[in-house]
Amino acid sequence: MKLSFSQYGKSAVGLLKVFRDGDVQTVKEIEVSTLASGDFDRAFYSGDNSTTVPTDTIKNTIYAMAKDHLGESIEDFALFLADHFLGKYPSFHGVTIEITEKPWQRMVVGDQAHAHSFQRALSGIKTTCIRADRSSKDIVSGIKELEILKSTGSGFVGFPRCEFTTLPETTDRILATRVSATWHYTKPVKNFNETNRKIVDQFMLAFTTEYSRAVQETLFRMGTLALEAVPELDRVMLRLPNMHFFQYDLARFGMENKGEIFFPAPNPHGDISATVER
Amino acid sequence: MKLSFSQYGKSAVGLLKVFRDGDVQTVKEIEVSTLASGDFDRAFYSGDNSTTVPTDTIKNTIYAMAKDHLGESIEDFALFLADHFLGKYPSFHGVTIEITEKPWQRMVVGDQAHAHSFQRALSGIKTTCIRADRSSKDIVSGIKELEILKSTGSGFVGFPRCEFTTLPETTDRILATRVSATWHYTKPVKNFNETNRKIVDQFMLAFTTEYSRAVQETLFRMGTLALEAVPELDRVMLRLPNMHFFQYDLARFGMENKGEIFFPAPNPHGDISATVER
Amino acid sequence: MKLSFSQYGKSAVGLLKVFRDGDVQTVKEIEVSTLASGDFDRAFYSGDNSTTVPTDTIKNTIYAMAKDHLGESIEDFALFLADHFLGKYPSFHGVTIEITEKPWQRMVVGDQAHAHSFQRALSGIKTTCIRADRSSKDIVSGIKELEILKSTGSGFVGFPRCEFTTLPETTDRILATRVSATWHYTKPVKNFNETNRKIVDQFMLAFTTEYSRAVQETLFRMGTLALEAVPELDRVMLRLPNMHFFQYDLARFGMENKGEIFFPAPNPHGDISATVER
Amino acid sequence: MKLSFSQYGKSAVGLLKVFRDGDVQTVKEIEVSTLASGDFDRAFYSGDNSTTVPTDTIKNTIYAMAKDHLGESIEDFALFLADHFLGKYPSFHGVTIEITEKPWQRMVVGDQAHAHSFQRALSGIKTTCIRADRSSKDIVSGIKELEILKSTGSGFVGFPRCEFTTLPETTDRILATRVSATWHYTKPVKNFNETNRKIVDQFMLAFTTEYSRAVQETLFRMGTLALEAVPELDRVMLRLPNMHFFQYDLARFGMENKGEIFFPAPNPHGDISATVER
Repeated sequence: MKLSFSQYGKSAVGLLKVFRDGDVQTVKEIEVSTLASGDFDRAFYSGDNSTTVPTDTIKNTIYAMAKDHLGESIEDFALFLADHFLGKYPSFHGVTIEITEKPWQRMVVGDQAHAHSFQRALSGIKTTCIRADRSSKDIVSGIKELEILKSTGSGFVGFPRCEFTTLPETTDRILATRVSATWHYTKPVKNFNETNRKIVDQFMLAFTTEYSRAVQETLFRMGTLALEAVPELDRVMLRLPNMHFFQYDLARFGMENKGEIFFPAPNPHGDISATVER
Repeated sequence: MKLSFSQYGKSAVGLLKVFRDGDVQTVKEIEVSTLASGDFDRAFYSGDNSTTVPTDTIKNTIYAMAKDHLGESIEDFALFLADHFLGKYPSFHGVTIEITEKPWQRMVVGDQAHAHSFQRALSGIKTTCIRADRSSKDIVSGIKELEILKSTGSGFVGFPRCEFTTLPETTDRILATRVSATWHYTKPVKNFNETNRKIVDQFMLAFTTEYSRAVQETLFRMGTLALEAVPELDRVMLRLPNMHFFQYDLARFGMENKGEIFFPAPNPHGDISATVER
Repeated sequence: MKLSFSQYGKSAVGLLKVFRDGDVQTVKEIEVSTLASGDFDRAFYSGDNSTTVPTDTIKNTIYAMAKDHLGESIEDFALFLADHFLGKYPSFHGVTIEITEKPWQRMVVGDQAHAHSFQRALSGIKTTCIRADRSSKDIVSGIKELEILKSTGSGFVGFPRCEFTTLPETTDRILATRVSATWHYTKPVKNFNETNRKIVDQFMLAFTTEYSRAVQETLFRMGTLALEAVPELDRVMLRLPNMHFFQYDLARFGMENKGEIFFPAPNPHGDISATVER
Repeated sequence: MKLSFSQYGKSAVGLLKVFRDGDVQTVKEIEVSTLASGDFDRAFYSGDNSTTVPTDTIKNTIYAMAKDHLGESIEDFALFLADHFLGKYPSFHGVTIEITEKPWQRMVVGDQAHAHSFQRALSGIKTTCIRADRSSKDIVSGIKELEILKSTGSGFVGFPRCEFTTLPETTDRILATRVSATWHYTKPVKNFNETNRKIVDQFMLAFTTEYSRAVQETLFRMGTLALEAVPELDRVMLRLPNMHFFQYDLARFGMENKGEIFFPAPNPHGDISATVER
């Protein structure tokens, strides 16, 4: 028996950094996962740990490096960490650094932005995943758990029917989803935060401005607008679960439900994924 | 053996209502729980269901009543439901209606509020709980899962020490909590949403504007400000778990951590609860 | 404004103890919550921490005391902790100690019980809650998240109907629930583990051996059998959510569903609670 | 812009089947996800749903097919569903059927197995994933959320040290993990349940019987034993997060902690993955 693949590292390293710029402070809360592949077969074959940098060391490193190198963008910190680990440990041939950011938003008290108080922010967790070896780096950023909903402007008609089809056609339904999206950068950009925001803005634009004849159509429009807006991207991967809200049958009680009263049916759910490329 | 307490009902009735005011739509997503006490002993003693309104009927009723009676405030709908159930079913002697609202926030696309698109707002779930019988109604509203954090302006000194004490004193720490608060109305107010917002604003004010010498002190200030701002309240109940963020020990690596790098330690957590009264 | 109630302490203190009895080891994993009430008003009114034993000290104490005093039963450890805290800190007038046990079960490998390997066990988390002051102790133990299901032997008929009733009567349905139960001991017993096991066995007996005409009837039987079996109990509190499994409508596809194919509908769910007393 | 990948379907279709074999009944609870790839580009490019079998139809089909075709093994049902969908819908070029089984275990009441009562078994969820097109089928089965722990017989020494290393060497630690494993069948076996059980038994054997010098070594032994025991497998993929339990520092209180008192530190956690091949 032999090993055909392996990786190891530390997952779920939570970290909060306070940026103390005079009286106004800013906080950033991230979670880092670092997985390494390389010269580690001996640990599997014979329990020889001589090349296995402890995952505890990986964890310590992340906190230590955050002090001087974690700035505004999780991408820049992930790229730095990839360089650090590959530069420091010869047994590491490749690393995958994933960072998620759970956003804190500056609190507004009495119409004034507060200097050091924050509130957990709107839905949507920012993500980045850097895969690197000593000759190349691959940058994929994204967003997940972004819940959005249109109360009209969506339908589903013209689908094939068979003996197992009971779904009625509709030209006005609720369209709700929890967006998971990632996008591939062909090269680093100057300001990842700004570029990522532009991409998410395009998703919102695509989601809102045109009638949706299918989740698929909306997904393709979201990917297309993002690619058009950001030349440094070559592909966008989207997963849009169809978080169903069904009309409740009020006719049984002598009432008419004109698209007013819905019940959420989170499971089972439709599940649409695709990659849009340039 | 005998019954000394019983209640039954339907929990977790999810419901989304679309308000269609011309071109601009609004959505409200709530979850309702209805528990009844009354003349139900026969079901327990002898499986006699003749007074047990099915929980399925309770569920149907909530959807049906939402059509005409769910408006802006969950309090008003809960009060309506309490009246409805007590008025309709003689076997119901008392009801407890709990409603939570999972907020959707109108989406802004290109600086413009969109007419029918929404995004999940994460911070803070609104709650209300009405306990009613045929002669009285008790109104307790609240907020939960409201995550807030101060990156400075908080300390903890002067506490007693014993052989099990290892905690150092500090005059500058992170104070983070996930607020659970409820407040008791002595009578209905005209606009529950507005009044509740005023209460939460006072919480924020109390949390942010003064140095916190103890979570307890901050809690008491939060309750006090809310009671001062809203005369219809007679008491405020607050639970403030102390969501610890500890400084990571960087000295081991020859670095100084001047309140910059923290790791979240969600469990175990401090847990402070109190009721503030007029 | 004044304080009418307060308590504070440390929640979710996770702890695993290894009992090393020669070659055979045993593990016990528990989570402890300790809340104190007492002479703490000064912390709320003026940020004076001089009576506030830090929750960090409470945490340290739990680990330290577990070394010599955590044995087979969580009740005995909770009673010990209550005595310890009340004896040591004059500012503590009352304490509530809650302990849950997440069970590990000895692993069987090749038909042999292994000396030091364990597997997460069957559903059901054991709980205890001790409320104590310097003159009295109150012992409530329990079980939660115990998921049980009967595939037949349950029905629901004879209930009142109104215009909102659409539920059909049935004499053969699935009855599934996630038991939350607590029971009050009038005095300590010699072997809490054995007594608690006897109580849960009675729940199972009541759940399985007789036809259920209502969840209420089954609940009352569960409480009654437990009280009959254990004289040291004076009351049993049970909450039985009705975890619905509904027959899927296959008639639309020309098939008959004779109680074979169900879909789980966890929410909304029926919710039945009661206290059975001697 | 163009589509380079897409799939769609229905996820999280929950289903419970009751097998009524005379007086003794058996239940099986599964969750099915069905994703199809094929001739669906028109939906993305132009909202043309003429080839998009509704996910609601897919859901209906799963319930309908379960009546006659769901038996003891989730693999056989998944293979059947794959054939059904590919046979029935020309626009489906490939399907991925994933099924998980949440186990119910027959209840034992008074030393007797009960004919129709069941209890949730917590440890280990069975999984299968069939990827099929019209010319081939790929079978990968597995287990997840299987929590196991050794209280001794595990160490970690001989690892490289650098300025970020603070971890001490140990020859006696707790080894705990939540196993996620999948294995690839080169062809269907007669009795998937029996074969899968044999594989998991080998995991347990490998986990328990030898001293673990590294999680990696234990992982490799688990994969090796499984491949040796089951000739129809060609590879085993394992992920073993290192669920840390750290010794609590009692020396600060004048006590010695001889591997007795640990605190669980679920995050951050070590994360070891590998594929073992024949």
